[in-house]
Amino acid sequence: MNEFELIARLTKALAANQTVVTGAGDDCAVLDFGLPDKLFLFKTDAVVEGVHFEKDTPPEKIGRKALARCLSDIAAMAGTPAAAVVTIGLPEDFKPETVETIYDGLNALAKKHGVAVVGGETTSNPERIFISVALLGTVRRGKQALRSGAKAGDAIFVTGELGGSSAGRHLDFEPRLAEARWLTEHFPVHAMIDLSDGLAGDLGHLLKASGVGAELLKTAVPLSRAAKENARKNPFGKMPLVAALSEGEDFELLFTVAAGDAVKLLDAWKKHFPKLKLSCIGKSVAGKGITLRDKSGAQKLNTHGYVHFA
Amino acid sequence: MNEFELIARLTKALAANQTVVTGAGDDCAVLDFGLPDKLFLFKTDAVVEGVHFEKDTPPEKIGRKALARCLSDIAAMAGTPAAAVVTIGLPEDFKPETVETIYDGLNALAKKHGVAVVGGETTSNPERIFISVALLGTVRRGKQALRSGAKAGDAIFVTGELGGSSAGRHLDFEPRLAEARWLTEHFPVHAMIDLSDGLAGDLGHLLKASGVGAELLKTAVPLSRAAKENARKNPFGKMPLVAALSEGEDFELLFTVAAGDAVKLLDAWKKHFPKLKLSCIGKSVAGKGITLRDKSGAQKLNTHGYVHFA
Repeated sequence: MNEFELIARLTKALAANQTVVTGAGDDCAVLDFGLPDKLFLFKTDAVVEGVHFEKDTPPEKIGRKALARCLSDIAAMAGTPAAAVVTIGLPEDFKPETVETIYDGLNALAKKHGVAVVGGETTSNPERIFISVALLGTVRRGKQALRSGAKAGDAIFVTGELGGSSAGRHLDFEPRLAEARWLTEHFPVHAMIDLSDGLAGDLGHLLKASGVGAELLKTAVPLSRAAKENARKNPFGKMPLVAALSEGEDFELLFTVAAGDAVKLLDAWKKHFPKLKLSCIGKSVAGKGITLRDKSGAQKLNTHGYVHFA
Repeated sequence: MNEFELIARLTKALAANQTVVTGAGDDCAVLDFGLPDKLFLFKTDAVVEGVHFEKDTPPEKIGRKALARCLSDIAAMAGTPAAAVVTIGLPEDFKPETVETIYDGLNALAKKHGVAVVGGETTSNPERIFISVALLGTVRRGKQALRSGAKAGDAIFVTGELGGSSAGRHLDFEPRLAEARWLTEHFPVHAMIDLSDGLAGDLGHLLKASGVGAELLKTAVPLSRAAKENARKNPFGKMPLVAALSEGEDFELLFTVAAGDAVKLLDAWKKHFPKLKLSCIGKSVAGKGITLRDKSGAQKLNTHGYVHFA
């Protein structure tokens, strides 16, 4: 059983109440507490030593990443983050300065995005540090971007460049908060998700939630310099395209709009975000799954981003 | 450095914004998002295998406890819980049934209190299970009970019976949500906290936040049957009063009201909550720290609940 199958089992029959607009299964939950213009977004996530960061990762980057992951989920809903609470699990021999520096990194990113850090608990976790962050945000009523709205024929877009995040970007990526809000204010975004599990996996989540498939143009997938460098250094390792499809932790936005909006969007984007690449990588289609196309033909992808030759 | 000193260092200079009414340092944060009648409460907490539960603890009780601890914090503010998100850290060899049963326990308690569970993440934590819960609640504007409002001369009350929680009650305690709301609706509660660290420690937090001291009447502290049983079985172990002062995880309410309200409160309480004991255990006084009185004289307590003979 993989992580997604387990989560699907766990979130089958969760307790609900009348505040729930969108429960577990999207990037954030969406809650309605009766504010006329706003809905609430709610998300939690954790980073664990040896899994999401290493023993020698600079502590301020650990704290930064713990919050940035949740901020990226708020971005994926086109929301604005408001308040965070934090629990740190600590081995007995922890150094107080390390923990303070973790908090410094988290706090600095919180200040940058106007987030209040309103609770800090510590607990014991004997073998390794973990940091669990819960984040509360808001979104303009009706402007929340879900995973489930893609329609056959939509153009599929991705921000930035993908793959090779483990070379460093996973510690200092910028959550695409302003970009996502701008998008939903200026274009009808049909569906959106942030890339945490790799393009193939996360596009798979979006397609499944929307009940459509996708065709991607191989040469249109934007590849990061790090993914290309990795491939150059290790010819027996992953090709850059496979890295982009499968590695994850890119924390870029993946979204769809009506095909008729695609050119207008690309033009407007260039004016507003000249430093951040936006790529149209393909289109959604009736059916299921992801097909990868190039001059020589078509390949079907599985959800882990590995290529099955068709 | 103990946990409280560390938290004090970490929460010194947290990022803030205009939503924050009460930040880190009380049982929950209090946030204002502009609802005319309500403020929001926000809290996170985690339980860790080997620390808050054991390898052989029934999984549904683990899930129940993970949520119940946060519910008790919402109770301590006199609030109503609304929505929870959960992250579970899992060793590689976890059994999916165990995790499902943890969720069953959590869900059952959520349903009982009208809480929606709106997010479930899993992550790897190789050596032991941890469960981190974040809880969002509401409280009637102006009715939030803080730790900081006790005045010299207040009567100090505690619900239930204290000590010996590790014999079982820490897994199936009832968060005092209805009781706390009833209290603040019918009496001006000056200060309130839930008992997670032991009477001496938590009363210490309340007194410090309020800038007062306290005198407790030794014979008035309600002792649990479990604390008495433990003492009977192990004559070299903790006396029941020491257990009540120091053991923690009672998750009862500790609060103060004006002395003039004390008798009226006890009468009204008996009518509304005939099954739950309410005890007046002493009074707050000008000064600092806790003094324990009996016929033979007075003793000063330290913050860990150990008795220093005065």
